[in-house]
Amino acid sequence: MNTTTANISAESEIRALMDSWIQAFLAKDLDGIMAHYAPDIVAFDAILALQIKGQQAYREHWEKCLGFCQGPIEFKLHEVTIVAGDEVAYSHSLTHCGGTNEQGEMQASWMRGTVCYRKLGGQWKAVHEHFSAPFDMETGKVLFDLQP
Amino acid sequence: MNTTTANISAESEIRALMDSWIQAFLAKDLDGIMAHYAPDIVAFDAILALQIKGQQAYREHWEKCLGFCQGPIEFKLHEVTIVAGDEVAYSHSLTHCGGTNEQGEMQASWMRGTVCYRKLGGQWKAVHEHFSAPFDMETGKVLFDLQP
Repeated sequence: MNTTTANISAESEIRALMDSWIQAFLAKDLDGIMAHYAPDIVAFDAILALQIKGQQAYREHWEKCLGFCQGPIEFKLHEVTIVAGDEVAYSHSLTHCGGTNEQGEMQASWMRGTVCYRKLGGQWKAVHEHFSAPFDMETGKVLFDLQP
Repeated sequence: MNTTTANISAESEIRALMDSWIQAFLAKDLDGIMAHYAPDIVAFDAILALQIKGQQAYREHWEKCLGFCQGPIEFKLHEVTIVAGDEVAYSHSLTHCGGTNEQGEMQASWMRGTVCYRKLGGQWKAVHEHFSAPFDMETGKVLFDLQP
């Protein structure tokens, strides 16, 4: 793809959407988080469910997830790639994320995130989200200690 | 996005790419698999590594993965969504996949896959791939028994 002014502009818009989503997440602002998603979002989250389809189901999933998060959350993006066409875009990144355990200590690990976007009614919305951590085939356990 | 003839055509091209990739995988044809990827592919695979960057590293990863696969493989896509713009596209699906264990029995489970594509030199190539299974937060173990 040739990088055009339109693409650069779209990529800036996607970056702003990602930043705004992170701010909402760190503030545990459920409405703020949900504002970034299209009505027919399909999410493959790292925990609990194979897939979550639609705003209402995803809102309920997010409520559960935020319920796990007592105390401060960490969620930092690294190695962010954004590719945007006129109406379809995606981003992927590593995320260093975690929460505060019962002893008040931050427990964080590296995860992976991919988000797909469409321009709907003139606004970019996340239409698909995929978060995960890789696992060990022998033990079936998540590899929380991997480093980039 | 308004669905145009160009988009429908692009979505058919992506579907053909996915089908061709699956045929190569089922045949354990490493060159055939690799032909679907852009040189700077970034992969978040379900096992072994946090991320794999570039054709050469991904080829080595695939060699290891195919090495685990003795006997027939199962890899079937379900609930496939493809969205294509002119030069950027993505797909996501559930995959029922597995291999043959030492007793000769097929062991399969549900996973999730997201693939992002770009049109490079007139041809669609996969530039990003994300496969995973969700896990249980309490045990850190993969939830292999979830059903769609």
